[in-house]
Amino acid sequence: MKQATIIGSGLVGSLWALYLAKAGYKVQIFEKRADMRLMQMSAGKSINLATSYRGWKALDEVGIGDEIRKIAIPMYGRTIHQLDSTKAYQPYGNIGQAIFSVSRGEINAKLMSIAETNLDTKIHFNEECVNVDLENGITFLKNTQTGVLSECKSDVVFATDGAFSAARYAGMQRLDKFNFSQNYIPDGYREILLPANADGTYKLEKETLHIWPRGRFMLIALPNFDGSFTCTLFMPFEGHEFCFNELKNKEDVQSFFKIVFPDFYKLMPNVADSWENHPLSSLAIIRCFPWTHGKLALMGDAAHATVPFFGQGMNCGFEDCSVLFSLMRKHHENWSEIFKEFEKIRKPNGDAVQDLSLQNYIVMRDKVSDPAYQLQQKIERRISELFPNQYFPLYGMVSFTDIEYKVALEKGNEQSEIIADFIKTHSISESTPLEEIDKLIHHLFDKSPAIK
Amino acid sequence: MKQATIIGSGLVGSLWALYLAKAGYKVQIFEKRADMRLMQMSAGKSINLATSYRGWKALDEVGIGDEIRKIAIPMYGRTIHQLDSTKAYQPYGNIGQAIFSVSRGEINAKLMSIAETNLDTKIHFNEECVNVDLENGITFLKNTQTGVLSECKSDVVFATDGAFSAARYAGMQRLDKFNFSQNYIPDGYREILLPANADGTYKLEKETLHIWPRGRFMLIALPNFDGSFTCTLFMPFEGHEFCFNELKNKEDVQSFFKIVFPDFYKLMPNVADSWENHPLSSLAIIRCFPWTHGKLALMGDAAHATVPFFGQGMNCGFEDCSVLFSLMRKHHENWSEIFKEFEKIRKPNGDAVQDLSLQNYIVMRDKVSDPAYQLQQKIERRISELFPNQYFPLYGMVSFTDIEYKVALEKGNEQSEIIADFIKTHSISESTPLEEIDKLIHHLFDKSPAIK
Repeated sequence: MKQATIIGSGLVGSLWALYLAKAGYKVQIFEKRADMRLMQMSAGKSINLATSYRGWKALDEVGIGDEIRKIAIPMYGRTIHQLDSTKAYQPYGNIGQAIFSVSRGEINAKLMSIAETNLDTKIHFNEECVNVDLENGITFLKNTQTGVLSECKSDVVFATDGAFSAARYAGMQRLDKFNFSQNYIPDGYREILLPANADGTYKLEKETLHIWPRGRFMLIALPNFDGSFTCTLFMPFEGHEFCFNELKNKEDVQSFFKIVFPDFYKLMPNVADSWENHPLSSLAIIRCFPWTHGKLALMGDAAHATVPFFGQGMNCGFEDCSVLFSLMRKHHENWSEIFKEFEKIRKPNGDAVQDLSLQNYIVMRDKVSDPAYQLQQKIERRISELFPNQYFPLYGMVSFTDIEYKVALEKGNEQSEIIADFIKTHSISESTPLEEIDKLIHHLFDKSPAIK
Repeated sequence: MKQATIIGSGLVGSLWALYLAKAGYKVQIFEKRADMRLMQMSAGKSINLATSYRGWKALDEVGIGDEIRKIAIPMYGRTIHQLDSTKAYQPYGNIGQAIFSVSRGEINAKLMSIAETNLDTKIHFNEECVNVDLENGITFLKNTQTGVLSECKSDVVFATDGAFSAARYAGMQRLDKFNFSQNYIPDGYREILLPANADGTYKLEKETLHIWPRGRFMLIALPNFDGSFTCTLFMPFEGHEFCFNELKNKEDVQSFFKIVFPDFYKLMPNVADSWENHPLSSLAIIRCFPWTHGKLALMGDAAHATVPFFGQGMNCGFEDCSVLFSLMRKHHENWSEIFKEFEKIRKPNGDAVQDLSLQNYIVMRDKVSDPAYQLQQKIERRISELFPNQYFPLYGMVSFTDIEYKVALEKGNEQSEIIADFIKTHSISESTPLEEIDKLIHHLFDKSPAIK
């Protein structure tokens, strides 16, 4: 029987195990941590992810999409909370299009359990990867409880051990001509759990992603099933009027929320008491190339860790599985051919999803509350309504199609310039009548093939 | 007695030991390799470095410049070898200004021997750094011969263990918010030793750096004391008409040299026989930040490894010693203050020397044979002759002053645009009379403070 090793039983590793099992592989997964399913998980510990089209596609390919849909809450748009406590709603796409809030812990636990239903798949916990023999496909392991060293040889090895991949550090990084970078952004984040009302109902609208955009920083909130919201504050560490370093004690935190998020503060006047429940964490973009060498391939965050602002980290990792599986078929499991094509076609998309993520931080924290951006969005939505099969706004290309990320990025930025120019040329404003806008859109669409 | 640990007895480590000894430190140097001075070193094994102003300044500060001058050959300019075997000479600076060819092995051996004359300095060979406790200043070592593990605690630790610094990989890289990148350029290099004539004389002019610029690639030659030249071919690995991958056998090598370096080929018709004497090597730019943490500081290539095209790798590392020593005095050996200021002022210069190095590859392999560049150089030299205390060409700022690299880079590029514009505006050509040029220069200098 064909043998595969997966390093890391996170989201991508667990899903990839399902694909490999489907292809007839005996799969050994080695996970550094203990089995998370055996631990008490408080709701407060969970962080939320947004599953979108690419994620669902990959889950459906192995027949488990519906199982995961049971633990997913649709979010059809953004609810913008302004400083004066007024709110505005911006749909993400056409009617019915949504991204889905899922708990990271829950989806991971489910994926592991489903993977283990395959008799030839086994997850070994507390087994830390300490090295990889890339040429011979040997993974060297150390049991974190007993200290016992062991090794596992297989036909092919996948490193899905995340942004700080041990397999990558130990196995790949000292290879000649291995390009690598880890760059931290100047901003960090801290999570805050906004609990449900006493009767279990939600304190904010449920099926939407809440944003408190404040220019250089922002607070967001994603719904959980129990009526709570997982909120995250993204902000510079230092060097700004509002930054983590300036929030030195409970009083600072309280007055910060009172001043900059007054409506949120009303919902959670004891926010300062929850401040220390979650650590202050940093955010990095990690790029590398090649992604494969000998018998090892990096997948997911191990290959292209990104910042979370487009909600695409998991989706991109899941798409790696779709793509790699299609290449297994194309190349009849000739792994050297599969690896070569995988990194060639996926690397530009890994780079693009990182660029998109960085770009979307500025959209979320700043642009969403800018009238010029709102007008641009309105025009884009209208074009996409009038020409639904020909025009895709950037957000939709990324979240509701599997158009390659690099194409979405290029086309999205190109479109954005055209629309900005269009608005300027025709002096379009919020008060321009809709029929006038429609006429201009038809005219634009007829003459400008670039936006098609 | 104050205790310091240095990891790596290379060029920077050995020189830094001299500075620390001068400041009254007991110095332990741990070197992974065996003592190079005990090994048979063939001339062919040596690679050459160019010592320039910053290097001499740092050597002179500890009183050993004259000792090193004994093994240095001045190179006053570039000799350009065109495809048609004609030659052109371009001085590096004003009369008497030179960079100096030294053998890496020889200078390193000398620095180690001088360092060891201090009774409180000890070099431990075959001791590989396997980890560093940054907070407590403990270096963990493994003897490469016996496998024996040991540790050394000291007041302060310096990692001068080169581009692939073990101290950096093990101690710094997994620190939260440690930015890091290693990026290989698409070109590699291979050395070739051009032997002396039978009577010991040089086959090419001695006191010059020879370049065979060929657009996308180049061959260079630096003189050795024994009449030989260390030649280096820099070229893309793949994807070009002329690249390393296309030189598959002796016949390929021979016909390559015959076609693209005909005058060199005449001097060394058996070049293909020497082809395998030196390995094909890769070239990378390594950037990181911070450079210091707890009791550890990265210096030299461990902090800012660059490609060799401006001949500044060693000089910049030696300048690190000058700067760090001046900060020791300024902050009265308060290491936390010294480290903070060191990385703050040196990091932008580390970045700049890397940008300068990349930029100068294009100058060396391509621009030097471009008439427009030659004219620009001629004008620059003339300005610098007329206003020697006010105008410094870029090459001179980098090689013959200790103007900060970042200032040289900015000012150099700014000047370059002004001169290009000046040539264009006044339709200056090779045939413009010198007195006419002088008049225009005086006019330019009077009205444009930007170039002063």
